[in-house]
Amino acid sequence: MTAIQAATYNVEFGFDAYQSMNDFIEKNDYSKLFILVDENTFEHCYPRFITKLEVDIPVEVIEIDPGEEFKNIDTCIGVWNAITELGGDRKSLLLTLGGGVITDLGGFVASCFKRGIDFINIPTTLLAMVDASVGGKTGVDLGVLKNQIGVFANPQLVIIDRKYLKTLNERDFTSGLAEVIKYALTYDKSLLEAVHQLDDSNIEEVIYKSINIKNEVVLEDPKEGHLRKVLNYGHTIGHAIESFYLESEDKESLTHGEAIAIGMICEAYLSHQVLGMPLDTVELIKTDILTIFKKITLVEKDFDAILSLLKHDKKNKKGQTNFVLLNNLESFKIDCQATTKNIKESLHFYNS
Amino acid sequence: MTAIQAATYNVEFGFDAYQSMNDFIEKNDYSKLFILVDENTFEHCYPRFITKLEVDIPVEVIEIDPGEEFKNIDTCIGVWNAITELGGDRKSLLLTLGGGVITDLGGFVASCFKRGIDFINIPTTLLAMVDASVGGKTGVDLGVLKNQIGVFANPQLVIIDRKYLKTLNERDFTSGLAEVIKYALTYDKSLLEAVHQLDDSNIEEVIYKSINIKNEVVLEDPKEGHLRKVLNYGHTIGHAIESFYLESEDKESLTHGEAIAIGMICEAYLSHQVLGMPLDTVELIKTDILTIFKKITLVEKDFDAILSLLKHDKKNKKGQTNFVLLNNLESFKIDCQATTKNIKESLHFYNS
Repeated sequence: MTAIQAATYNVEFGFDAYQSMNDFIEKNDYSKLFILVDENTFEHCYPRFITKLEVDIPVEVIEIDPGEEFKNIDTCIGVWNAITELGGDRKSLLLTLGGGVITDLGGFVASCFKRGIDFINIPTTLLAMVDASVGGKTGVDLGVLKNQIGVFANPQLVIIDRKYLKTLNERDFTSGLAEVIKYALTYDKSLLEAVHQLDDSNIEEVIYKSINIKNEVVLEDPKEGHLRKVLNYGHTIGHAIESFYLESEDKESLTHGEAIAIGMICEAYLSHQVLGMPLDTVELIKTDILTIFKKITLVEKDFDAILSLLKHDKKNKKGQTNFVLLNNLESFKIDCQATTKNIKESLHFYNS
Repeated sequence: MTAIQAATYNVEFGFDAYQSMNDFIEKNDYSKLFILVDENTFEHCYPRFITKLEVDIPVEVIEIDPGEEFKNIDTCIGVWNAITELGGDRKSLLLTLGGGVITDLGGFVASCFKRGIDFINIPTTLLAMVDASVGGKTGVDLGVLKNQIGVFANPQLVIIDRKYLKTLNERDFTSGLAEVIKYALTYDKSLLEAVHQLDDSNIEEVIYKSINIKNEVVLEDPKEGHLRKVLNYGHTIGHAIESFYLESEDKESLTHGEAIAIGMICEAYLSHQVLGMPLDTVELIKTDILTIFKKITLVEKDFDAILSLLKHDKKNKKGQTNFVLLNNLESFKIDCQATTKNIKESLHFYNS
């Protein structure tokens, strides 16, 4: 695979990527390398990674607790203190090795430490590979509100090594497929077929195509002025559902992909209501997604709480919730509005 | 006074500045205006400010506790939560009204809220006017380490209204003079004379000249690659002393200016030792500064603790402390090194 050229850096694939990484670190005369991992990636990914790392500078590993519930400012403070105590300075380099929590939080930590140090991302989950590897979004949650605090900042390099995917359990692997399906529905429906036939022979190509789509979108609109909003397809309702389940004490949390899968089905139905997308296309999308993501039953008495979380969506302007909806497969419309009634009906449609 | 053109925005002076502000807010179609104040500026500055504000959008005031000890991430979390609860979105505008804590922290809060909203700074202290109004440095402290966490981000507009200076007590007003003296020693010694004759008739010109010097420096070197380091004259030792006094339980904290005044005297002596600046110039600088800032006695048994704080200076690279030193008045050299013995002698020189 050739490298994908993102805004100011490359996304590199496979074995050669590590050579690029070692060369890059050598060339830039860093004082120290900090590797940010969580308990899981330290156990399962770090042993592979460390055999690839060949540098002459001091290396320190910083481990945080795994999981979305630790993607917050308190964890950042812990990492900032650790970097400080381990002698980090402006010429330090932070390397993130993990899923989206690690790459998003690590990018934010690096961007704010002494007003910004360099960082390299090595996503180890499918979700982080296809979603967080390009686009420059870093950040953490504020309470239950996802990515409420963060900055736009680009890594110096991203390395995609599909071998790390072997370390994921099925549920976490599947989570990443939601983003691939999003690219399929909005830009390239051939990816939908590829997802259903996914194996070792085509996974790297699926990742490559997904990153390529996202990269083209964010190169055109880095700060989400307009086009980039397409990447939020399924995420408006999806994020509200994800927050609701994270917040809820008597419900098991959903993975990001599970929540977005629900969001994409609901927003397909909204697309029918608001833009007149044919109902059989909506049904096709629903069936397709539900062969991959198991059905959850949304409880009607929770609908109001989910709707109230929509009010905090970052895409809102002047109190109005904006959606990306579909005219049809591979054809979308940005800044659509839907009524509360529409949204509730779409939740019922998912349940039906 | 004409406006000073900073990197991407203007610094405007006096009455006309408010007209610019109102026009700017009107033009940019913001959803809501948040005004960040502390207890003091809400009492003493806000009443004047609110008579100047003429906008048609909702306005919310967020008040934080005053003082450097609240310039931390916990305060940021409080402000982020307040903005969230008050319905802030990506089209919200944050206006900071206060000293350096408010403008630095407010700029950081704005830059990270939903990955960045616009902000306007209205510095109300002399220090914030001459130091924080240009340069794009935002941030907060991490424990005792000053400005350890932050980002580079520019406001949309800065307003300088010298009427706010009347609200300062003498100690806080004097604190700001340290930065003016720094500009005098490194760039324009005529400012030294002006400082000694300071009154209503020349204060705005002193502020204007100071901002102009800093602006020219940061335009040339926004990210502190080289030239911008000149702005750290007196700040390497000064910051360590400020942190030490802040941390110390049995000593009263120093103002920023008081600490920097000590730092400038010590670093003048280092300039003699390392670069051979004439000793009578060092003595002149010391005498001059001590007519404005009252002498503190540094206790010798504290020297090691102060030196250990130097290790965390943001300008350090690879464990080495770097200083900006003077060849003579208006002539400086960046990236100088001094031994521990030199530094201790400079602390003794201050005491002598």
